[in-house]
Amino acid sequence: MRELGIGLIGTGFMGRAHALAFRNVSAVFELPLKLKLAALADADPQRARHCADAWGFETAHSDWQQLINDPKVNLIAITTPNHLHYPMAMAALAAGKPVYCEKPLAVDLEQANAMRMAAKAAGVVTRVGYNYQHNPIIGLARELIENGELGHIISFQGEFSEDFMADSASPWSWRCDANHAGGALADLGSHLLAMARYLLGDIESVCADTQTVHRQRPATAGSQEQRTIAVDDQVHALLRFANGARGTFSSSWLKHGYKNHLSFEISGTRGTLAFDQERLNELRIYRAGQGGFQRLLAGPDLPGYAAFSPAPGHQLGYNELKTLEVHDLVMALTGISQGGTDFEQAWEVERLATAIRLAARESRWVGIEEV
Amino acid sequence: MRELGIGLIGTGFMGRAHALAFRNVSAVFELPLKLKLAALADADPQRARHCADAWGFETAHSDWQQLINDPKVNLIAITTPNHLHYPMAMAALAAGKPVYCEKPLAVDLEQANAMRMAAKAAGVVTRVGYNYQHNPIIGLARELIENGELGHIISFQGEFSEDFMADSASPWSWRCDANHAGGALADLGSHLLAMARYLLGDIESVCADTQTVHRQRPATAGSQEQRTIAVDDQVHALLRFANGARGTFSSSWLKHGYKNHLSFEISGTRGTLAFDQERLNELRIYRAGQGGFQRLLAGPDLPGYAAFSPAPGHQLGYNELKTLEVHDLVMALTGISQGGTDFEQAWEVERLATAIRLAARESRWVGIEEV
Amino acid sequence: MRELGIGLIGTGFMGRAHALAFRNVSAVFELPLKLKLAALADADPQRARHCADAWGFETAHSDWQQLINDPKVNLIAITTPNHLHYPMAMAALAAGKPVYCEKPLAVDLEQANAMRMAAKAAGVVTRVGYNYQHNPIIGLARELIENGELGHIISFQGEFSEDFMADSASPWSWRCDANHAGGALADLGSHLLAMARYLLGDIESVCADTQTVHRQRPATAGSQEQRTIAVDDQVHALLRFANGARGTFSSSWLKHGYKNHLSFEISGTRGTLAFDQERLNELRIYRAGQGGFQRLLAGPDLPGYAAFSPAPGHQLGYNELKTLEVHDLVMALTGISQGGTDFEQAWEVERLATAIRLAARESRWVGIEEV
Amino acid sequence: MRELGIGLIGTGFMGRAHALAFRNVSAVFELPLKLKLAALADADPQRARHCADAWGFETAHSDWQQLINDPKVNLIAITTPNHLHYPMAMAALAAGKPVYCEKPLAVDLEQANAMRMAAKAAGVVTRVGYNYQHNPIIGLARELIENGELGHIISFQGEFSEDFMADSASPWSWRCDANHAGGALADLGSHLLAMARYLLGDIESVCADTQTVHRQRPATAGSQEQRTIAVDDQVHALLRFANGARGTFSSSWLKHGYKNHLSFEISGTRGTLAFDQERLNELRIYRAGQGGFQRLLAGPDLPGYAAFSPAPGHQLGYNELKTLEVHDLVMALTGISQGGTDFEQAWEVERLATAIRLAARESRWVGIEEV
Repeated sequence: MRELGIGLIGTGFMGRAHALAFRNVSAVFELPLKLKLAALADADPQRARHCADAWGFETAHSDWQQLINDPKVNLIAITTPNHLHYPMAMAALAAGKPVYCEKPLAVDLEQANAMRMAAKAAGVVTRVGYNYQHNPIIGLARELIENGELGHIISFQGEFSEDFMADSASPWSWRCDANHAGGALADLGSHLLAMARYLLGDIESVCADTQTVHRQRPATAGSQEQRTIAVDDQVHALLRFANGARGTFSSSWLKHGYKNHLSFEISGTRGTLAFDQERLNELRIYRAGQGGFQRLLAGPDLPGYAAFSPAPGHQLGYNELKTLEVHDLVMALTGISQGGTDFEQAWEVERLATAIRLAARESRWVGIEEV
Repeated sequence: MRELGIGLIGTGFMGRAHALAFRNVSAVFELPLKLKLAALADADPQRARHCADAWGFETAHSDWQQLINDPKVNLIAITTPNHLHYPMAMAALAAGKPVYCEKPLAVDLEQANAMRMAAKAAGVVTRVGYNYQHNPIIGLARELIENGELGHIISFQGEFSEDFMADSASPWSWRCDANHAGGALADLGSHLLAMARYLLGDIESVCADTQTVHRQRPATAGSQEQRTIAVDDQVHALLRFANGARGTFSSSWLKHGYKNHLSFEISGTRGTLAFDQERLNELRIYRAGQGGFQRLLAGPDLPGYAAFSPAPGHQLGYNELKTLEVHDLVMALTGISQGGTDFEQAWEVERLATAIRLAARESRWVGIEEV
Repeated sequence: MRELGIGLIGTGFMGRAHALAFRNVSAVFELPLKLKLAALADADPQRARHCADAWGFETAHSDWQQLINDPKVNLIAITTPNHLHYPMAMAALAAGKPVYCEKPLAVDLEQANAMRMAAKAAGVVTRVGYNYQHNPIIGLARELIENGELGHIISFQGEFSEDFMADSASPWSWRCDANHAGGALADLGSHLLAMARYLLGDIESVCADTQTVHRQRPATAGSQEQRTIAVDDQVHALLRFANGARGTFSSSWLKHGYKNHLSFEISGTRGTLAFDQERLNELRIYRAGQGGFQRLLAGPDLPGYAAFSPAPGHQLGYNELKTLEVHDLVMALTGISQGGTDFEQAWEVERLATAIRLAARESRWVGIEEV
Repeated sequence: MRELGIGLIGTGFMGRAHALAFRNVSAVFELPLKLKLAALADADPQRARHCADAWGFETAHSDWQQLINDPKVNLIAITTPNHLHYPMAMAALAAGKPVYCEKPLAVDLEQANAMRMAAKAAGVVTRVGYNYQHNPIIGLARELIENGELGHIISFQGEFSEDFMADSASPWSWRCDANHAGGALADLGSHLLAMARYLLGDIESVCADTQTVHRQRPATAGSQEQRTIAVDDQVHALLRFANGARGTFSSSWLKHGYKNHLSFEISGTRGTLAFDQERLNELRIYRAGQGGFQRLLAGPDLPGYAAFSPAPGHQLGYNELKTLEVHDLVMALTGISQGGTDFEQAWEVERLATAIRLAARESRWVGIEEV
């Protein structure tokens, strides 16, 4: 069986999530490839070594360029802050290596466009970490929609809110810097845009409103020094889908009480379904003529779930969605999975985010073809 | 104690709801007025007589103008189809009698404006049936907002959806006729606009999208004859409040699974609250620093609830909100209650609905001052 | 149409609930009788007069015996503290008048037995205020069970908990006195026993555990004087039904967080249903082969609901259950309704409560035939 | 760092869950030991080899005795059917090796007693797979109880129901055989007994009722041959805790709609908490004086959660509870963790299950000291 050498850049929240996923995927799936944790990179050599040992990677690099050039590495996974996605992915593509990059794809549409063109030119598999799509119950939702169980889709109401920046004393970070693709829209909203596209297809035009509520934040936690913030704390938008559906979109990192509230309702001429990532193993569905909403619990009738448990209602966790994402990646690398959220799809998400910002700035409807 | 002769026009869903409210209000509150069910009018004389007997009204009229002129009648309650609100209310005001009119106020903004001017000129009390505001737990929500418990308000997400027109075989009715203030926005959305204003104050500008999904409906139930429909089946909008808050607004009468889903979330710099009319005795609230959302059940610490029950968690029903509305009306008639949703406030709701329709028609943001 | 003169004894929580129900029943139903609010009695003559006026009763009595003898009174409604049920009901029956008595029927089984024998001898209609049975969605639950939609019933889990006595500073009242049928079992648990019987039929044997947690309470609110309490604060039991089902039963007035938590789950070989009185308009049901629990909202397909509203999801309130109870009573008085919770049925509830107390006292299983 | 050679017996649902846990624990925790996946045993040599490769174990054995004697193996993990726990654990203890055994500990109390005595004599660490205790939010529940946040505990209502045997066509398996510790009580109920003890301590006496509803099941799926079943399909019990609390206990594998419904409510003189394993990342809590129940979402303030994610509300899955169990095991092996659910504790669970069966058989209360 062919061996695939994994090279992972970054050791933060997403770095470890990737590492766990790569460790687990071959234990829960029969893979057509043998995965090898070849190398890990972090700018801090000590941390690189420590994490490589803890997570089972053979080699530790402090220079990500070396990892990309490492001949034992056949796949580059990028989990660094957003502004590094572009140089790293471009270098990987230049080296002819497949790329698995965290979201959002880039810090602006120009970068994103260059990345998708480079991917196309390189002819390699790419994937972007919109992991919520890999939830088996989201797969069920998509299937129900595609099979027409909801009839003709007419409305979408989506929201992705958290509250980790709700306190004005939460300090500045690169997430507050527009040059690093900061703001709630890029950080959270992009997940919801990707989900809306995954479930309902293209969005043709948008109108939007964005707001910076806390215009000053401490430079660091507890610091007296304040930094001025310009990125969006919250965004509201109207969406028009190519399939005729219309809807609303909200995203905020200020909304008290929510911790991972990627939620939506999709309604058609024959039914409605509803989802909330804070209860990721559940889907609510109403079919016309039924008496009421039904709560479905994920179970082994969904293939992605069965990989982890033969028993329904036992629940997958967040990290397991990453394992499912890596599974999709491996299937794509062996040509079994087609489509998927590659750089082309992720660029479409960037276009939408760009259109939303433009619509907000100019207080008007913006067609996706304008950006 | 002064006696107040009630004259009720209409015997449908709302007619009976008014009748029940007038019957009950003096049994649950100590009123400064003695209510007398003086007269009831319905165009069908037999139905008028039958309902008058069943509901305890003394006189039955088949001509509403006679009811308005009936000297025993001191208050005119109007529960007829929307296009009749204007002539009836204008006649009542011309007769110098207070008016309690169902929503929406009128079939267009011109009528609504004439009505509020007439009310002002007549100097009598008016009330419009935005009864959801009278829910004691909504009163609590308003109090929490006004007391700053949520901090500075930054977002509003509201939706009022039902599914009673979801089936394209649901026949035409006057609710499908724009000249009768038909459409989901007027029928359902106006309640949500009134609620948003009640809780958060003026809305300055809107952008919107409306849609007619089912463009043909049977002329009557089961009929082969089809009538063309032009009113909105669903509407989505963005709202900008004068207080700086921003938000989304949705209303639909096609959304499968929902029966009375007037729902909203309001978030501020210190907390979030959430409500759904399908569980009208509950309010969810999150306060910054708290561990999670708390579910509050209405109880006798809320005065409007205590009128009906000394025991918490025993729940008010829809009809009791009407009784609370009538209580507010009686308090206004005796000068004890100030403000309230009178013709002036209801005209503001009509302005917003008109602005939403204009924004949708012209695909642009519309300031409230434009209409 | 025959006129029925109502005589109501008592003006507390239940007194007013009865009054509201008698006022409303003829406005929401077509009745075969004309109800007349003939007389109201309260030991305090001023309060009697005041409530009679507020609630629309013609005559006020301070002596309940006079009310029973009042020739204008054809039905006696009893809403006084429990120890008065016996003398009042016996006097009413001696006068040959139908009786509508609040629950629990009596303060001991001997009284209850005498009352049911007297009722049988008098040959008049009796009803006991186990009002939760009259919830239309409970009617639906019963119908689903009787139609075999859940298959053969195998388990029952029921609980009725509130927290109004949870604080040890909540003072003594007659509800704390065994001679007045005090304790959580009599006050709350009897409702759940009646409900279990209503839905699943006879209970053959019980085992139980009762506990007095707060053995001292202030004589009155805030008082230093303490009174010793011997009645149960909480009770847990096992139930064996005649139909073969087995289950658990809990009742407490100390359980923090609950305000009206009469709840149960009933499971059979083909499905499960679940109910909680704190959301009285909802029923959860799972049918074998379905994907998940479904939430049903009460609507006008249920006759008892349709009486109040033509629109689903608009919700009945607690007081409206009383109106439905009075409707059943009126139907019984005209011979249309058979069965129902009369003194015979209420005596069966008393037997069960007595068996539970005996089982707890002697720490053993007790067959219903032992009491 | 000392290396610990893991030997895993069994490759079913639990076998893989153990394997995933051993693979992940060192990636999410800083461990004082280096884990090595030394050997895996399955009676089928091909399956043993296949799983060893897929899960990363070095050696594959088809004879479990060889695995126990394998000098590279320092810890024996047992995930075979229940009747094999005893011989395997006894052999491991005889070899002086620590044992991590799935629940229930044994097929009868005699075996369980021999095992705990052998463990004590061997002086090695033992653990039994009552993994639900390792949920971080259960840790929080225990802490809240121990800190007195609920006051003095007075009641427990617990239920563990699933529906995987609800269909009478679900075939016989060793789980239906009393000699293999079959039945709902052993399979599911033992988890709830362990949980009750973990949270509230010793249970002193029980009264119980057990039932076999489906007395015949196909010998294998779809077979005409029927086998007679004698084990319990459902059990209901009353519990008396040493701390004075009283409560109910239910367990069923026939309860339609439930997939992993290990649920409980614990109430004290100052509050109530509620949990349901079907939403394993949530805890509902009510504190006296608060307005309502609060929904807590697990987050990184809980150490066990932080090991997997720095972001609250992102949710752990079932498999991660096993990783936390293995972490506790490793901490015990290095002497850092004391207590824990060892053979002594698991024997106490067996005593309770035995007492429940005796109480049901003899229809009487049984003190734990009787068994």
